[in-house]
Amino acid sequence: MKQIEKISAGASYTAVSVGRLNELEQHVLTLTPEIQIPGKVFLGQALAATGAEISFQSFPVGGQTGFHHIHKNHEELYICVSGKGEFQIDGQTFGVDEGSVVRIAPEARRTIRNTGDVPLVVICVQYKGQSFTAEDATDGIILNDPVAW
Amino acid sequence: MKQIEKISAGASYTAVSVGRLNELEQHVLTLTPEIQIPGKVFLGQALAATGAEISFQSFPVGGQTGFHHIHKNHEELYICVSGKGEFQIDGQTFGVDEGSVVRIAPEARRTIRNTGDVPLVVICVQYKGQSFTAEDATDGIILNDPVAW
Repeated sequence: MKQIEKISAGASYTAVSVGRLNELEQHVLTLTPEIQIPGKVFLGQALAATGAEISFQSFPVGGQTGFHHIHKNHEELYICVSGKGEFQIDGQTFGVDEGSVVRIAPEARRTIRNTGDVPLVVICVQYKGQSFTAEDATDGIILNDPVAW
Repeated sequence: MKQIEKISAGASYTAVSVGRLNELEQHVLTLTPEIQIPGKVFLGQALAATGAEISFQSFPVGGQTGFHHIHKNHEELYICVSGKGEFQIDGQTFGVDEGSVVRIAPEARRTIRNTGDVPLVVICVQYKGQSFTAEDATDGIILNDPVAW
């Protein structure tokens, strides 16, 4: 079973790796001793993230989530980086592939399946919904000091 | 110039596409008429995201951000999906490649460069730092109703 690897860490950052995306199926998420999800790995704790959770999931050919889920307060972004699949959200079904990004409100019932002939690789980031205000659009500050490598 | 494509939308979700990740350089972020960043595209507005901003960026061979930046309140997650590069955070430099994920605190000075011989493709998600509490670990609810495609 594959583990999350540490790359680097400092007072203000943490860097880890899940390894190559075509080897994600070597990760196994253990929910209970009976319920294990091969190909899924959560990174929030390893990254010491303070306002989001992030996961990678590789759905094998013919694979699917197998259940709907909702959230109490978290909005989710799903990023498809390879393969082809379908999302079903509140009964509406649509296709996704490389470069597709889906934003889902907390209360929406969602499920995913792989409809292609290669693994479907999806990254999911969840965070508190309705937490941005107009001032969040100008949160970043570009500095003028020179960059030296 | 490439545009963000709409895939599907409903009351509780929005789905868009940036297209194939090896064609990201066809997107151009216009900061001012004089300052344009080829290969970068922000999606938060197109997705109607309410608690995060998300961007894709393809750094060409030899390319780099060219400046440091910090944030007021947003923590950032950088996800490397292809290529090889280096991050420099508060003066510490380390390498990243496919499957690397970096969590950066708001106040940290950060910059990125491509050190490989193919484009470096990075996804960045920013959200309010220090916004999660213990109860956020149990935000998701798995439903028991059957899934029908």
